[in-house]
Amino acid sequence: MNRFWSPIVERLKPYVPGEQPRLANLIKLNTNENPFGPSPQVLAALREELGDTLRLYPDPDADELRTVIAEYFQLKKQQVFVGNGSDEVLAHAFHALLKHERPLLFPDITYSFYPVYCGLYEINYEQVPLTEDMQIRLDDYDRPNGGIIFPNPNAPTGCALAREAIEALLRRNRDSVVVIDEAYIDFGGETAAPLVGRYPNLLVIQTLSKSRSLAGLRVGFALGDPTLIEALTRIKDSFNSYPLGRLALKGAVAALRDRSHFEKTTAAIIRLREEVAEALCRLDFEVLPSKANFVFARHTRHDAARISHRLREAGIVVRHFSQERISQFLRITVGTGSQCKALVETLARILPDL
Amino acid sequence: MNRFWSPIVERLKPYVPGEQPRLANLIKLNTNENPFGPSPQVLAALREELGDTLRLYPDPDADELRTVIAEYFQLKKQQVFVGNGSDEVLAHAFHALLKHERPLLFPDITYSFYPVYCGLYEINYEQVPLTEDMQIRLDDYDRPNGGIIFPNPNAPTGCALAREAIEALLRRNRDSVVVIDEAYIDFGGETAAPLVGRYPNLLVIQTLSKSRSLAGLRVGFALGDPTLIEALTRIKDSFNSYPLGRLALKGAVAALRDRSHFEKTTAAIIRLREEVAEALCRLDFEVLPSKANFVFARHTRHDAARISHRLREAGIVVRHFSQERISQFLRITVGTGSQCKALVETLARILPDL
Repeated sequence: MNRFWSPIVERLKPYVPGEQPRLANLIKLNTNENPFGPSPQVLAALREELGDTLRLYPDPDADELRTVIAEYFQLKKQQVFVGNGSDEVLAHAFHALLKHERPLLFPDITYSFYPVYCGLYEINYEQVPLTEDMQIRLDDYDRPNGGIIFPNPNAPTGCALAREAIEALLRRNRDSVVVIDEAYIDFGGETAAPLVGRYPNLLVIQTLSKSRSLAGLRVGFALGDPTLIEALTRIKDSFNSYPLGRLALKGAVAALRDRSHFEKTTAAIIRLREEVAEALCRLDFEVLPSKANFVFARHTRHDAARISHRLREAGIVVRHFSQERISQFLRITVGTGSQCKALVETLARILPDL
Repeated sequence: MNRFWSPIVERLKPYVPGEQPRLANLIKLNTNENPFGPSPQVLAALREELGDTLRLYPDPDADELRTVIAEYFQLKKQQVFVGNGSDEVLAHAFHALLKHERPLLFPDITYSFYPVYCGLYEINYEQVPLTEDMQIRLDDYDRPNGGIIFPNPNAPTGCALAREAIEALLRRNRDSVVVIDEAYIDFGGETAAPLVGRYPNLLVIQTLSKSRSLAGLRVGFALGDPTLIEALTRIKDSFNSYPLGRLALKGAVAALRDRSHFEKTTAAIIRLREEVAEALCRLDFEVLPSKANFVFARHTRHDAARISHRLREAGIVVRHFSQERISQFLRITVGTGSQCKALVETLARILPDL
């Protein structure tokens, strides 16, 4: 180990995000970005904020944005926390709420940043296997724990749980925090946000990166009991008092206010997802039922890594994980209509040659 | 303690940033923002980046920005780390490089976020008293340590050390990381950046919040040996792979490229600082010699808290710290010419009444 490093650094296995290819012309279906641009109202709000006031610090408490989010979910500002992308919100949640003597529980197949956060904050955890058909079975979480976290819909499977199931889990785990990571909730899932007022152990995390088309702006938020929000705030104010700049704050406010753009684009993605899923089935893929802006699919005969490689040669980037259990799956973001069409046509062309 | 909180949360004493008053018309001299706006080239670059591409994640490696910073300082990209404001860079530096068995050393009077980071990462530290006249005496750091950090110029005193002195410190502490926090370096101090290539134990941290007038954009960076940068990167990639959004990346690149705006505005602030310092002396303040964009001053007869209170009533906000040793000082940001004039005239009016 390098003598200058804090001991923790050597032990870290950092998260590796999906590639951001530098080539233009590639069809990028590997990081679950929204194929449609952000609301024109967001761009207008950002344009208005460009000026001399950038010399001033942003509001460290993000009062306006937290108020707008609270109104959106019919909550109070004290039930809202905001951060620099939901990854930062998740990091603070792991640090503030999920480090206990008993192990944190999360699925074996899930967002691969979770074990990384556990490494960073030295959190004891246990991975709970998904069922054979890649579903979260909540009965498997009936064991002593210091917290539970999973995405709903789960990543990278895209499979969702009903709000009812989440509520049953909350009732059975009244002494631990249950974090529902809803990065992909707006594409057909049922948010747990309406449960926030009734379950002091619930933290819901969402992002503006997917359904609001703002991955480039970095805004995420958490909804929960004021006590949970206070813990997050104490960590945040011990880390970086100003995680969101003035542009991120203004853009996020405008994004939440434009419901019509949001509804139109999410509906289009849901429709396209169903079309892509059907087309993949016709090409002999097994496609997991997805409520996200991506599908998770396995070909019945061909190797996933090879398909991914050939797609890349043809100018289409999808995500392949080498992890056990899912190494034969591809995670494919739902693109625009013409991107989806190109994907299906390219697959139809290359699969027979494999 | 709340049963949902990780044990660390209860023990934190979060940092409290200077007030961001919501009233317009106030003269805001309390958080060391630049009184001049950012470069017009920054605004143009940001305007150009406003569009559909905001739907895409930013480059997680910030290659372009790191390259531009490297060129600026005649270093390599591998010697540059960027983060969401220098507060985030500092947080990662504490976590990645400053947690060792031996105590971290920093001044008793300094950036008050340092002990907060130590609380967050459970870092053992010792505060080294400034001299009677509020100077860092480097001989006092000749003792076993697991790292040394201080701002140069120091905050909130504004007093600077010469590069030569920093170099002597680096030579005497070859086994520990020495972090020089240069938030205020561009207002007359000597940066330690040219020493980076020769001292593998040196980390220099700077921000675009002050001399580049971009406190609202949140960009900071660190310069150091590739090994130190790797440690920071491992922590960053275990925390949030995309700390800088697309706008922050583009704006920062443009800011570093516009040397002329930078030179003009920093020179103006230096000139105004000297004028304010002289005027304060005439009003019976003792003013510490400042190389920052603020002055730290103590009235020879009147109580600092009272002066601060009366200034606030008159529409001028300055920063008063209740901390021992400096509770009779005011930290006053250098504003525009007319703001400085208003400050001096208001003081001349209110001091006789105190």
